[in-house]
Amino acid sequence: EESLKVTSSTAGVGVDQEELISAVPSGNPTFISRNFTDAEIAYCNAQPSSSASFAARWVGKEAVFKSLGVSSKGAGAAMKDIEILPNENGAPEVTLHGDAKAAADTKGIQKIHLSLSHSDTIAIAFAQASSA
Amino acid sequence: EESLKVTSSTAGVGVDQEELISAVPSGNPTFISRNFTDAEIAYCNAQPSSSASFAARWVGKEAVFKSLGVSSKGAGAAMKDIEILPNENGAPEVTLHGDAKAAADTKGIQKIHLSLSHSDTIAIAFAQASSA
Amino acid sequence: EESLKVTSSTAGVGVDQEELISAVPSGNPTFISRNFTDAEIAYCNAQPSSSASFAARWVGKEAVFKSLGVSSKGAGAAMKDIEILPNENGAPEVTLHGDAKAAADTKGIQKIHLSLSHSDTIAIAFAQASSA
Repeated sequence: EESLKVTSSTAGVGVDQEELISAVPSGNPTFISRNFTDAEIAYCNAQPSSSASFAARWVGKEAVFKSLGVSSKGAGAAMKDIEILPNENGAPEVTLHGDAKAAADTKGIQKIHLSLSHSDTIAIAFAQASSA
Repeated sequence: EESLKVTSSTAGVGVDQEELISAVPSGNPTFISRNFTDAEIAYCNAQPSSSASFAARWVGKEAVFKSLGVSSKGAGAAMKDIEILPNENGAPEVTLHGDAKAAADTKGIQKIHLSLSHSDTIAIAFAQASSA
Repeated sequence: EESLKVTSSTAGVGVDQEELISAVPSGNPTFISRNFTDAEIAYCNAQPSSSASFAARWVGKEAVFKSLGVSSKGAGAAMKDIEILPNENGAPEVTLHGDAKAAADTKGIQKIHLSLSHSDTIAIAFAQASSA
């Protein structure tokens, strides 16, 4: 009599890359504290190459931002609102806060899939925002 | 009594990259006029780096083509039929014409999501074709 | 009276890249026979640049692995279980075997979309796992 429909569609995709990991100023405490959460900072600092870890995450935040499909972030936008932490399998998991969460809610976005890849000098990220 | 189902599924994905933006012959008028629409040319020429803009768009066209999942384009295929222009948020929006549109219609593809990224020398694009 | 629903949702995405194709040891017979199926080896050896072909496929396997969202592969994991061969259009098609197939089945993954791109020195792959 009734039919339960759980349908999912892609709301947006995002790709980003940094050619030189050194282009991400991971040694700049102001940049880090403005753009990364405490949990992200603790995680990256515990990695073998914290600069590569910060860079991959930064590129990931840009890709997630693009997947939200909102207009270009102003000077006041907080990339800190896009938090990327490993799940129990070590894969990157996205949690949104503040304005980023509000934008996603407005668009009906329920899940953001993210994948990161980096070599010694290049970091690439792909994000897909899914609505239901 | 009845149930309306709007379901979306991925019909194909495409990724493309050019290692050197200079590998895309954006200074060649024949190449440009054969592969880009007037609106794309006007847009790219108005950008700070028109060569990077043409290159990113070219890589985007290749990624969109791959996402359509059709057999390899012959010499006569028109990449001009894959038009990429910014939407009101500045994000790339894909419009298909001619053979590309016919191929998408045949496959039931209703929307192509596209994201572009470029640094000084590398351009990357990701496309996702969705059918309903 | 009844409603047939075929809904698809993204179970995971994966991106991978190798900055230098030469970083993939395609000249090492042990590496090749451990990680590629006979059909993959026959296909790659028949390509104009077999080393680029092996490298693109290797990067593809990594991206597919990431899209499965399973915990990090141990020393015993077989990338050979992720087979990538061209379909009738020349596009890469993924077939899973063994442990990889079991992991996908457990997660309800029914299709993995994959796209590969390589230039002279960089190979990039994007994978999307879809469940129904």
